[in-house]
This record gives sequence, structure tokens and C-alpha cells, in this order.
Amino acid sequence: MASIDLPVPEFGRAVIEDNRKDGYWVETFKFGEDEVPGLVASGLASGEIEFLDNPIAAAKHEAKAKGEEFYASEIDITGPWKKYQVAKFDSPVAVVAVDINRNGLTDIVVCHDYGPFMLECDPKGGWISWLENPGRENLGKEPWKLRMIGRWPAMHRMKAGYFTQKSVMEIVAASVVCGPHDKVSLSSPWQSAFCSCSLIHYLQITPIPIIRFQAPEDVLNATEWQRSIIDDENFTVIHELTVKKFNGPTGLDSIMVSSREGANWLYYEEGSWKRQLLSSGEPKEDRQQPNSLSPGSGDHWGTGCADAGKIGDDPFAYIATLDPFHGTTACVLSKVGRGMKDTQWRRHILDIYGTPNQLMKYGDGPGHYIVCADFDGDGDDEFLLALFGSLDRDKDLESIVPTKGPNPNKGIMYYKAIDVEKGLFAKWKIAEESSARIAIGNFTGSDKLDLISVEYNVPRYYEEPKPVITLHVNKFAKPKPAVTERHIVPTVWDNEGLVYLARPKEVKSQQSFPLIEVANYAISIEIHPLGAKIPVGKKDGIKVLYGSVADIEGTRTALGLPPFPRIAPISSEDKELSADKEKGAIILRIVSLGEPGVWEKAGDVPVKTTFNTKELGLEFPDLKFTKVEDLWWGDNFKGVDFTNMSGFHFRFQDDKSQIAHLQFWTAGHNVNCGVHNHSNDIFQEIHICLSPGTETGGMWRLKEGKEPESAGPDDFDKVPLPRLNEHGGLWYRDSYGDAVRGHNNVVSYPWHKWQGGKGKNVDVWLALEFNPDLAQ
Amino acid sequence: MASIDLPVPEFGRAVIEDNRKDGYWVETFKFGEDEVPGLVASGLASGEIEFLDNPIAAAKHEAKAKGEEFYASEIDITGPWKKYQVAKFDSPVAVVAVDINRNGLTDIVVCHDYGPFMLECDPKGGWISWLENPGRENLGKEPWKLRMIGRWPAMHRMKAGYFTQKSVMEIVAASVVCGPHDKVSLSSPWQSAFCSCSLIHYLQITPIPIIRFQAPEDVLNATEWQRSIIDDENFTVIHELTVKKFNGPTGLDSIMVSSREGANWLYYEEGSWKRQLLSSGEPKEDRQQPNSLSPGSGDHWGTGCADAGKIGDDPFAYIATLDPFHGTTACVLSKVGRGMKDTQWRRHILDIYGTPNQLMKYGDGPGHYIVCADFDGDGDDEFLLALFGSLDRDKDLESIVPTKGPNPNKGIMYYKAIDVEKGLFAKWKIAEESSARIAIGNFTGSDKLDLISVEYNVPRYYEEPKPVITLHVNKFAKPKPAVTERHIVPTVWDNEGLVYLARPKEVKSQQSFPLIEVANYAISIEIHPLGAKIPVGKKDGIKVLYGSVADIEGTRTALGLPPFPRIAPISSEDKELSADKEKGAIILRIVSLGEPGVWEKAGDVPVKTTFNTKELGLEFPDLKFTKVEDLWWGDNFKGVDFTNMSGFHFRFQDDKSQIAHLQFWTAGHNVNCGVHNHSNDIFQEIHICLSPGTETGGMWRLKEGKEPESAGPDDFDKVPLPRLNEHGGLWYRDSYGDAVRGHNNVVSYPWHKWQGGKGKNVDVWLALEFNPDLAQ
Repeated sequence: MASIDLPVPEFGRAVIEDNRKDGYWVETFKFGEDEVPGLVASGLASGEIEFLDNPIAAAKHEAKAKGEEFYASEIDITGPWKKYQVAKFDSPVAVVAVDINRNGLTDIVVCHDYGPFMLECDPKGGWISWLENPGRENLGKEPWKLRMIGRWPAMHRMKAGYFTQKSVMEIVAASVVCGPHDKVSLSSPWQSAFCSCSLIHYLQITPIPIIRFQAPEDVLNATEWQRSIIDDENFTVIHELTVKKFNGPTGLDSIMVSSREGANWLYYEEGSWKRQLLSSGEPKEDRQQPNSLSPGSGDHWGTGCADAGKIGDDPFAYIATLDPFHGTTACVLSKVGRGMKDTQWRRHILDIYGTPNQLMKYGDGPGHYIVCADFDGDGDDEFLLALFGSLDRDKDLESIVPTKGPNPNKGIMYYKAIDVEKGLFAKWKIAEESSARIAIGNFTGSDKLDLISVEYNVPRYYEEPKPVITLHVNKFAKPKPAVTERHIVPTVWDNEGLVYLARPKEVKSQQSFPLIEVANYAISIEIHPLGAKIPVGKKDGIKVLYGSVADIEGTRTALGLPPFPRIAPISSEDKELSADKEKGAIILRIVSLGEPGVWEKAGDVPVKTTFNTKELGLEFPDLKFTKVEDLWWGDNFKGVDFTNMSGFHFRFQDDKSQIAHLQFWTAGHNVNCGVHNHSNDIFQEIHICLSPGTETGGMWRLKEGKEPESAGPDDFDKVPLPRLNEHGGLWYRDSYGDAVRGHNNVVSYPWHKWQGGKGKNVDVWLALEFNPDLAQ
Repeated sequence: MASIDLPVPEFGRAVIEDNRKDGYWVETFKFGEDEVPGLVASGLASGEIEFLDNPIAAAKHEAKAKGEEFYASEIDITGPWKKYQVAKFDSPVAVVAVDINRNGLTDIVVCHDYGPFMLECDPKGGWISWLENPGRENLGKEPWKLRMIGRWPAMHRMKAGYFTQKSVMEIVAASVVCGPHDKVSLSSPWQSAFCSCSLIHYLQITPIPIIRFQAPEDVLNATEWQRSIIDDENFTVIHELTVKKFNGPTGLDSIMVSSREGANWLYYEEGSWKRQLLSSGEPKEDRQQPNSLSPGSGDHWGTGCADAGKIGDDPFAYIATLDPFHGTTACVLSKVGRGMKDTQWRRHILDIYGTPNQLMKYGDGPGHYIVCADFDGDGDDEFLLALFGSLDRDKDLESIVPTKGPNPNKGIMYYKAIDVEKGLFAKWKIAEESSARIAIGNFTGSDKLDLISVEYNVPRYYEEPKPVITLHVNKFAKPKPAVTERHIVPTVWDNEGLVYLARPKEVKSQQSFPLIEVANYAISIEIHPLGAKIPVGKKDGIKVLYGSVADIEGTRTALGLPPFPRIAPISSEDKELSADKEKGAIILRIVSLGEPGVWEKAGDVPVKTTFNTKELGLEFPDLKFTKVEDLWWGDNFKGVDFTNMSGFHFRFQDDKSQIAHLQFWTAGHNVNCGVHNHSNDIFQEIHICLSPGTETGGMWRLKEGKEPESAGPDDFDKVPLPRLNEHGGLWYRDSYGDAVRGHNNVVSYPWHKWQGGKGKNVDVWLALEFNPDLAQ
């Protein structure tokens, strides 16, 4: 299910290049490190490889050179971008942006010289070359130096990655076999035999090799790169290679191959390349049927383009495909029959585009490209479909021309899943102009994903008049980080609250979350980053749960106070404390709400639960003081004015380790809360007084040698606990100061109790039970 | 992320058996087909296998026998359930409910005779027997006939399923090897050497065999079942086998093994058993360390119980485990680094239960069982953890007894994921009493999942006093079927609406969804099940989109009206139509809102978009009439009083096939809407008049032989279209009445147009473009 209130996609539109002869390829191109990306664009016929410099990156470079301040928000990126010609080739096809010589500057790989068209593809062409980025200081002055990677006739698509190992960069490239042995038929009734992608309109029957090139050690002097054939048996008419870490973020890159065989996943595992069919794509029609005009009797079937989309925490929740080659059919594959191990996919047709002629599947479009990404910022991927347009007879019915202006077969469609398993989506058209390919990136330097599209213009195939490159600035993403992306995540834990906390070193600014108001104190949990300054109000207190804080009087830790009978205030004479520089600090903040009070009965003590789990959809009960006699262990306290309110657990988010448990107690005039020694618990406990209602109430420790059963008041060491004071831990300590552990690993304590004093009101205090096994 | 407003779990509690000597096993037991489930319960020491009959099932049987009406809601199931002794064995351990002789009655498999305890396990015991269900008429009269399946010493856990093939039922069973060769150490300082699960407190070092038994053809006369060893090398101290179709709903059953080796997945693939480690569970502590009292120096590590939970559309989104054997630690495994193929799991500790003694991991509990299921009805699985309790010294410190009454180590915990990938959960305690094991089922016959729990009582190990079996009736599930579970799912489709429709045969009652109000008519889409009665208001109309409806005047289908120039009203003289008995019907309902109207301008025609996509989080734009001159194809209509409002797509949910597209038009006084013949479209179109504002407006068809460019009014066949009338299709038909298809598969039409008439108001009509390739 989609989250509620999905934003309507909204993109600004700005032409960033309007002086083009043709239009085929756009590739996001981050010129150097720490720059917003620019663009590499190319045309098939013009042969020009251009770098369009993002004005923000250019201005930043200039400001830096001049030593001036730079503000990205002041740069207008909606005008034409400065263009640099990188190279000019005969018929360049695919472009890849990758830093080949590892100098921090992105280089460009191009495959080119595939010949005029497939039937006459140059058997000596199909070169793969790379162009060395000369650096900004030489941009427009020095040429980009050209070097050779390899060659295969009619090379057509390429991607860079780490496919068979993680040490050396590799390029996979898919070619088109050509030659007189391939059966060929001219099918499209009114279109040229010459086409953009070198193979349209021809029935190709010989499988295409997919080749892996591995970068040599000496990339600057190598005459060519080591190569190996990944597959030359299974694929014909490959239109796209899509590369992702399909085997998980820690795995190798692998490849989705869109070809006449559908969408296949090619991955390297245990020393060899494996192949898995994801979808057969558009089915092959029977070409022998008598009615040659039946739908889809064209040359193309299978898949033309594919990408995988993330939903929730599944990085490959669906696969969007455009079927077949230069296709008509927008599909998604969703997972079915999912087990622990294998995934099967079901194909859902979302839309069929195209004029009746295009629907014949001669490779006339209108679809050319598909890409998945999270544009609305909700954590789920949408996908875009680029439609280049359709052809029509001109007014005089004399020639075939692109249908003028906007029309249903031209533009960019934006699809968002509403139920990915069922293949149910919503759709918006986000651009009206012809689109051959889409480059995505954070071009504006904001935190929103923008896109750049080029209009399709390949001579004699589909010539969108005056093709331009447009930047579509994302104006709608409202990143809604999941509640659980927060550093403090509250949840319900069996009638108590549980707070999952980030490690302080992971937070960049103070994080705070309210817990409860008790006895005129508002108590909240806070995470402070390393070395953070922590202000403390004059009437307030703080108690460290993890890490440490320091002021002029010294350093405070969770358990660092010298042992009982030492007591210490939790307030600070300083107005500011500093969090530990290596560990930061997690603290309870106890803020005074008006005048300190005393109350006659536990039921009078003001309590307000401020812990809020509503954003998680959870109802959290109001906490309240309960008579101990009603607790599971309270049989011995019938009629005793002794109550408990529990409480909150604090745990780390990462390994879920317990930090401490917080609960609250009240005891009345002269109440004996029971002598005990925690022989059935494993924790280190301290108490903080919130209201000394019995005036002399506090911790009593049984003197050594005395028996708990027969002990009188004189047998105890007595420590009245003043308001906002804590007492040092009662547990036994070894010579290193560490807690002594006894039978069954319990923390060893002397016998002790809270004892109410002479006053007529109730004592109110909080107890913190620390995990003795947590590395503090 | 969790959905908002998660319900707080709430279960009623009713004791359904209170006269027990001990308590160990409960198993959901559906006595026969079409019955609500009852229960099989057993105790280790008493040896009794009992069937507790669900009062609803019993009453239903009785009513049927008497030929009386039966109302499940009138039956009280919260009192004691009638008990039938099925068998009595020496030390029965696991119970499985499965129909072995395939007569529709569920039989019972029991493993028994494992001997008094592990050290003295009976080398000739470990029998697996099955008990034949005698049928209700013989219940309590005839014994359940006993037959032998197989044997292995100290047989301990079993499950039924189809593990290596899908034809013959199999039982997998895990045993405990015993004998003098196993190293043994008595570890628990104050507990008996005798234990419930036959192996606690002993360090077991010889691997345990897991055995597969396959049902013979002649189950009634077979002397034993064919068996094979699945694994006898890898597992020691197996505490639970969990069986699901972990490889997907179409796959084989496979097994999650909870053992000292952690949670492992055992599955059969390509002719052999494979094993995958999911989690090592509780780590093994170094027993050689000097401090023998260090945490977890007990005999147990690994996992004690495990189950897999569904979240969203992932059937195995997490695995809940209880670690180790009779464990202390509630964990979930979530998926990390997920790729297309492999799944890795990360262990999150949710809670650690137990007294300090139990935390030593001598197998003293308190955890015994874990089970995942969707109790709140939101489509995601929660999981339950059964805690049997802890032991304590009695008041006189003389003996070890179960801690009396409710306490933190006793009861049933209910965990719900709030972020499964991060392992963040919420928790509620839903039962206070000791729980050994939980049976889940729809015991009340409602649509909510209830549970039954048995208190733990195994003599000399943990003896909960007066152990009872309790039914916990689900009182909180609020099944919120996802919007997309509905039969009519609306979505946004590029400024139009798209309605995904179920096939009529899949719906049990009429489904309706509003679309729009136009020209004083409210238009909605409806699905009617097979043979349904469809009322039609006197002033209203219906138009079939799929299937058919019939009244006294005949049958109506989408395209069944005789060809143009035939017209027909869409209203009905009958007040009721009947949907087709094999296909049902999908219809547009057009309901009159007050008096029929005419309007001077298109802008005056009342339009209200009632199509609502808010439940899907989608904003749907208000539709409105747009001048055709402003449409992408409207260049030729500058200044013409001709408008369009588009519209809605109707598609099937299952294969997404297009049924029809709906749009609206207006044309003014004498307006010529353009002669065309749909040469660039593929559809079969009809029109329905909503307001005949120009009085004589309607469809004009060019006579054969006339040229569209030069045609005058007399060259057309003219059909004025009255309000709520449709015209027969204009397309050419072959001798079978099917649409003739032309070049590029288009539907062939004569030239035609809508022509406004003499009146001064505007015509308003709707157009339906049907998919000619849909099997109607």
C-alpha cells in the first residue's frame, strides 16, 4: 500500500541546450569530485560528444579560483549550459561516465564507428574508446586524450562496474553481429531501412556477444584492455544493459539484459556467468499466419529496456520494462510465489502506447528508455518511461514526419506503484516533449532528484524538429523520512515505553524525546553528539545514562558517583555541560515545572505521560502510580503506602542492548519499602529524589553482620536523599571499583531498603536500573 | 513502516479444560472438513492424548443429525470443551494432525515411548504411531485404531508435509541420539536430571538424525512406512521443526530446524537435501573459562524455536526465534544486503527473559514456543512467544517451586514489527498464565485468529499447579483489507481516472464506484456477479461494458446493438435486469439527478468529479470540458463550439486488459465535429446522448461513394440521438458480424461525424471506445 497523500509530481522545465543537429544520448556526468553533476550528450549522426557544464559547478570552480564565497542558490541553471566538445566520432552510440585513471576526474567511454547501418556495419568498426578528462583548468583548451579499450563490430551498449571481482574496474559491452549470413527482411512498410540503433527493421538471428573488458594496470599506455566473452549464445537484438548490485549491496555488479529474449539477469557467481530469465517480454507472434497485418507481426519481441525499482526495504521489489525493442508496452514484473531463496516474476502490462503502425512492432517506437528512482522522496522508487513520438503523413500526405507538437506517444510518463504485487500503479505525464533518454541526478544541488531529457532526432528514422535538451527540476519531492529513521524511536513494550536510541557518535545535533511529567518535573531522554554543549537550567537536573558529561566540577557518568553513602545533586552550578568527546552522551533531562511540590498521597502526585508513539500508529497507555500490593510481587505489602510507576526501557538501536530501565516510586510516612539485596536481579541501581515528602526519607543500608529479618532502625546506615540528588551505588565493588558478581551472575548487594521518614507527605523518587554488562 | 492506528491486542480468556494432571502439547485439530477446529492436547507424564471438541463443531453435527437449523453465534465456546481420550501412551512427545487415509477426517500422529529421560532413553522406544479418526458417529464409542509408522529412539518432533515431491504425504521427524557414548555433564545446580523434552541439562555431542517417512499406498495395512535419513551429521539438541512452503506457495514444504546449531533451513532441491544457516542463535560460551558462573556457561546455545513472519507482500519478511533451547532470548532475523537471489539475515535481540538462574542457559526456560501469524488482520504477521515461567524457592526456602502467579517470565508476549529491517518492534503481554505451547486457529468461527494455550506442567521439571488449557478469543482484529484488495480499484492515469476491475465471476455481491456527475446524471461503474439482479430506476440507464444483462426485451451486451443507423434507449421498461449467468456484467449506471436539462454553453453543463482516489493517497484532478481547439489534435477546430472531457479507462485487474475508455463531448448549434474514419485508432466506439441541446444533433454517416472533403449535408445518413439513447456501432462488419480490420489492424469505419442541430443549446454525449481485441 502506498502511503497517504502522495504528492503530485511537479517538475520545472528549462532548455539547457537548444542548438543541436540531432539527439540520442544523455548521461549524467560529474566532472570531478565534490561537484554537482553536469551532462554528456551525443548524437548519432552529428557524431559530437559534448560536455554540458552545470553552471553551479562552473561557478563554484570559478569562485574557488578567485578565492570568493560561493552560493549555489544564487546560480541560475535554467539557461543554456556552457558546451564543450569532447570529441567527434563517426556514429557514436553508447556513452559511459567513469573515472578510468583514478585521478578524481570522470572520464568518458564511447563506442563508435558501427557503420551506416546494420546491413553495412563496418566489420572493422565498433571501437570502444575512452577520453581522458583534462581537468577544469584545461577545459576548452586541451583536447580530451583518446585511448582504445577494444573493439567488436557494431558495438552498441556499455556499462562500467565490478562484475567478476571487486578490485579492477570492468566494462561490459553488447554488440550487434552483422554480416551476410544473417537473415534479413525489410518489414516496415513506409520507413527507411536506415535506423538509429543500427538494427531496427531487420530480423537478426545470430546471437550477439556480450564482452567484458577489464581495465589494465597501466591504463595510460595500454594498447587495449583484456577482454573475455560473457555470452555469445543467448541474446539477439539487445537494446539495453542495466547495471546494479542486484545481488545485494555487498555483492558484485550484475547486468539486466533487455533483448529479444526478454529481460534476463546475467550475474557472475562461483567462477562463471549465470543467466536467469526474468520476463520473456512481448511475445513473438507467428509470422507465418495468413493475415500479415495481424497485430505485432513485426520483427520485434522480447524487451527493449528494463530497470529495477525499490519499494520499502526491498531493493528489487519490481522490474519496470519497456517491451519490445523501441517498444510500445510499459510493463512491471512483480514477485510471485516468493520463497526464502528463489524469486519468480509476473508480468503486468501497464500501458500500450503507439499508433496502429507502431503497434505492428517494426521497431518504430514510441518507447525508448525506462529508469527507476525515488523522485518523490518517500523511499520507494517510481519509474519514468521516455516516449520519443510517432510518425504521421504530413498535411499534403506526401511524406512521413514526426507528429507535430505534444501527443499521446511523446513525452515522459511517471509511474508510481500503489500495489506492486498486483501490478497496480498511478501515472502522470511529466513532460510533453519527445524523449530519447533520461539522465537523473541532483543537478540543482538540492536534495531532490532532477532529470535531464534529450529529444529524439536520428536522421531518416525519427527527426524531432530542432531537438533540445531539457532540465526538469524536481519541485515536489517532500522527503518523509520514516519515523524509524530517527535517532530516537519510541515504541510500546508491554505497558511500558521502550526507546531505541542511536549511538551519540551517529548524531550530528542534539536529539530529544519527551517521556513523562512527574511531581512537577518534565523528564525527557536526550542524545548529545561528541563534544556537544549541553545547557542546564538552574532548577533542572541531568542524569547520564551513557557516555559522560563534564563541567567545572568534574565528569559525570552513569555509574561514576562514589559508592553509597555518597550523594550528589544532579543539577549543575555551571549553565553548560560538555558531552564526552569520544562517546558523546545519552542523558535524562529533568526540568522543573514551576515550584517544587510535596503531596500527601501518591494519587495526588501530578503525572502526565508525554511519551508519544502515535506517529508509529501505536497507542501508548497513560502511566500511573500503582499500589505495590497490586503488583505480582507485592503480596507482602498489603495496606502499605508504597506505589510504583513503571516505566521506560532505553536500548541502543543498533544491537538492541539495554542501557537502563527507568521507573518511579512513592512511599509515605515511615513506610518500610522492604529490605532486599537484588539476589534475583542483574542490574546496578541508583535513585534520584523528586520530592522528599517524608522529609527524612531515603536509602537505608543494613550494617554488615546484621540480619535482615531482625534488624532494627539502628542496624542501618541511613541516607536521606534531598530533592534532585542521587545516591552512589549500593552494590559491592572489587578492587578495580567494578561491581562484584555473585551466584548466577547477579550483581552483589548488601541488604538495603527505601525508608519513608517522619513527614506526612510521600517521597517521590525515580530508580534507574543500569545494565551491568553494557560497555559504558 | 507500520500502518497508522494499530489496534491494541485484546483477547478474551476462557478455560476450556481445567481437569488436567500435566500440560505440554496443544495442536489445532479440525476433526473433519467444514468444521471449525477443535484441539488435541497431551501431557508427557500422564501420557493421555485427548481430543477437545469445539462446541460449535459438536453442535453443528448434532443439528445436522436432527435436521435442525444451526447458528454458530448461539454456541458458547467459553466453557469446558467435551473431552475424548484418543489414546494413552508412555511419554508421548509431539503430536501432528493430518488426514492420513484421505477420508476427509483428520487423523493423529504421535511419537511416544522415548523412555524416562535422555540418559535412560529406551533404545527400543521412540515409536511413531498414527491413530485413525473413527468419525463423529463413533466418537467416544470406538477407539482410534493405532498403526505404526516407524521408530527411532527418543523421537521428539514431527511435522507432516510434501517435502521431496507433491504426490505422497511425508512426515519428517527429529530424534535425540542417546547412549553411553555421549558425553554427559550435570550442570543445573538445583534442578532435576529429569526433564520434559528428554534432553535438558545434558551436553549432547552426537548428531541427531532427521528422518523422512513417506506414506505407503496401503496405509491401513502397511506394517511401517518407507523411511530415509534427511540429515544425521549436522544437528544436536533439536527443539523444534517448523514447516512452511519456504520456497514459495507453489513449491515443496521445507523445514526450519531449531537446534544447538541455530536456525537452519533444510530443503529438498534437485534431488538432494540442502541446508542453509539462517542464524547461529545464542552464541556458545567458553565453558573452560575460570569463572564457571559467567553468563551462559550452561549447556545450551543455538536456537530453541523459530517461525517465519509475513510483512506486506513478503511471505518471509522476518524470522522470529527463541534462543537457545528452552531459551531466554527473543530474537528476530531480518533481511540484509538483499539481492535478487540470495538472502542474508541479521539477528536482532528483542528481549532477554529469565531469572539469573535461567540466564545461565541450563535449559530451564522460560521460553518454550514461538509462532507467527496475522492476529490483527492488517495483512502483516505478528509473533507470539510462550513463556512457561521460572522456579523459585518456596516460602520456607526448602524446595524449588514455580514462581506463584503472574510474573515477568510467565505468559504470552505479542510482538509486532514497526520496522522489520531494523528489528524495531512493539510488544504487548496478552496472557499472564504459563504457556508451554500455542495452537492458533479460527476457533470461534469468526474471521479472526484465536489461540489456545496450555500451561506447562512436566513433573520434576516445571510443574505449574493445576495446569489448564485456555482459549484466547480474538477481540481486536479489525481486518483492514488494503484498498487494493477491493474489486474496484481507482487510480490516477495521466489526468484521467483508471479503474481496475475484478472479473464479475470473482465477486459475490454488487460492487459500485462513482465516477462523475455530468449534465444532471450521476455515472458510476458497477460489477455484478453471475446471474445477479440489477435494478434500474425509471429515469436511469445502464450501459454494459462487459458480459451481458437481460430483461424481458432481450439481452444487452457492450457491442451487441445492431449497426448504425439503429438506435436504442439505455433505460429499461423493466425495473430489473439480470446479469449473465456465466460472465456476470460490468456496467455503467447513469442515474438521473432531478429534471433533464439543456445548457447554452459547454461551461454551463454541470460537472462534478465524484471519482475518489484519496484512500490510495492520490489526488485526483477535477475533470472539466476543454475546448477541442486546445487539445493536441485540435488545430482544425479554432473557434468551434466543440469541447471534450476525458475521461476514464476501465481495465481488468488480473491481466490489465483494457475494456473501454469513457469520455464526454459537447457540440453547439450546427457545429460540425469533423468527418473522420478512425484510421489511426483501434477501437469500437458508440455514443450515448446525455442532453440533446441542439434538438436535431446526432451522428452523420457519409454515404458510400461520397468524398469527405466535398460532402454536403445531403451526402450523409443522419441519426439524431435522443437523450439516454445509444446508436449502433458504425464500423464495418464481416459476414459474422465482427468488425472488419484494416491496415495496421485498425477497425474499419465509414467516414462519419457528430453534427450539431438547429437548437441553440449544446449537445452533451458520452463516448465509449471499446477494446476490439477483448474477449467479450
